[in-house]
Amino acid sequence: MDVAFIGLGSMGMPMARNLLRAGHTLTVWNRSPRNLESLVHEGLKVAASPAEAVVKGGIVVTMLSDDAAVLEVTEGRAGFSQALGPGLHISMSTVSPGINRGLAQSHEALGGFLVGAPVFGRPDAAASARLNIAYSGGESARAKALPILQALGQRTQSFGDDPGAANVVKLCGNFLIFSATQALAESLSVAEANGLGRRETMDFFATTNFACPVYEAYGSRLADEDYSTGGFKLSLAAKDLRLFAAQRSADGMQLKALLEDRFEVALGKGWGDLDVTALAGLLKT
Amino acid sequence: MDVAFIGLGSMGMPMARNLLRAGHTLTVWNRSPRNLESLVHEGLKVAASPAEAVVKGGIVVTMLSDDAAVLEVTEGRAGFSQALGPGLHISMSTVSPGINRGLAQSHEALGGFLVGAPVFGRPDAAASARLNIAYSGGESARAKALPILQALGQRTQSFGDDPGAANVVKLCGNFLIFSATQALAESLSVAEANGLGRRETMDFFATTNFACPVYEAYGSRLADEDYSTGGFKLSLAAKDLRLFAAQRSADGMQLKALLEDRFEVALGKGWGDLDVTALAGLLKT
Repeated sequence: MDVAFIGLGSMGMPMARNLLRAGHTLTVWNRSPRNLESLVHEGLKVAASPAEAVVKGGIVVTMLSDDAAVLEVTEGRAGFSQALGPGLHISMSTVSPGINRGLAQSHEALGGFLVGAPVFGRPDAAASARLNIAYSGGESARAKALPILQALGQRTQSFGDDPGAANVVKLCGNFLIFSATQALAESLSVAEANGLGRRETMDFFATTNFACPVYEAYGSRLADEDYSTGGFKLSLAAKDLRLFAAQRSADGMQLKALLEDRFEVALGKGWGDLDVTALAGLLKT
Repeated sequence: MDVAFIGLGSMGMPMARNLLRAGHTLTVWNRSPRNLESLVHEGLKVAASPAEAVVKGGIVVTMLSDDAAVLEVTEGRAGFSQALGPGLHISMSTVSPGINRGLAQSHEALGGFLVGAPVFGRPDAAASARLNIAYSGGESARAKALPILQALGQRTQSFGDDPGAANVVKLCGNFLIFSATQALAESLSVAEANGLGRRETMDFFATTNFACPVYEAYGSRLADEDYSTGGFKLSLAAKDLRLFAAQRSADGMQLKALLEDRFEVALGKGWGDLDVTALAGLLKT
């Protein structure tokens, strides 16, 4: 299929490559032109604007960092909304559920559709097409999006017709990740303070009762106290937590409040460009 | 081997059965005589006291609920310490690391040894010998304990010579479990409040980025809001958290403090006999 891909960051770049490898024809746009040359060699076209990247009635994938970026490329001055018309917008960014619901209505007014399809997985999982993808939107739109999603992930799960539903799931999942990060940070600090190795303790958990991708990946960084950039930026994680906190919930969300505080302190220290596991650094101060 | 087994609760009972099935000869003692008749049919002997359960120079396994219970059966009036003499005590309860260190010294004074070998897994994992076991103690004692541990678990990992080390790991792991419980409770409350099914959301997490025993088992109860007894009693979990909090650590253990507060509130509501996942019930109040 002819697919437009908007947003070639640390996640979007390997995802776009996987669509190419799956045999799709790609036209891309990225705000900054970094690294696009190498992709041209792999056979894709680079458009001068989001609007020029899409074809009427076609498919466009967006993979951007926040609500504002998605709004800009869709309904901004050079946005693709009108040019896409009755096409399909697969919105894969971790944005607010409300943004996807609002854009779905805008697309519908032009005969088009939106499927929200946020992904779970760090850049290495994107590169090996092992992302886990939650998706939601109208039934026929979901069916049309599925082959694209299957080329990007090892697992897709539909969450029904609400184009914002999958992003609620995504925010809930990221909240679980941040919670696990804080829990691991405190747990490993106790192990270390009592004479155990952070790595041997973490390896035991990550190969037994917590043998799952999140504890393996985040636990590994926490074991090594490697909070350098390259994974999941703390500033973006803080954005996701704000979106999570803005959703409806029961009363008494104390862990949410604790994490909001921790992120604020970490951002105040200028750690926004570090990996989210840098939260563990607050334990030492 | 001839093995004494002290403590036939919801974990000890299936563990004792697995030792029988592995071909060991068992003599058991339990404070209350409940259900012991069925075990006699399976071929084990019931002793009148801890001291009478052991043989000099033999092996005894303890699987009890807290420090006081372990001290009582070991060094109490009818305790086995003197009778065991130069034997091996495999201490599998979730107790304080300090208790195991202290008892190890007492056994050593009689020519004996202690291996700390706390287990991860709920009663169903005990029944199917799928426990994960951390163990530590002197090298020769560890070697002697290993065949027993291997009959009880799917995985054993040594944490060296300190007979308290494995229990530090255990407390760290339980802290991770309680943290995950609180995180799941808050996360699923957001999913539910935004129109998603608790079960469908949980199933997605438990089969993708959180596909591990803890999120599967605890997540399943949280998805169904089934906090009935039968798993991991909230009162015992609160005890484990107190032991965790008593260990050395870095400063700034905010999640630990949050959980201490949540357990206190839950115990105050009389929820001690419910499953630890009842913490989620505090979100509704």
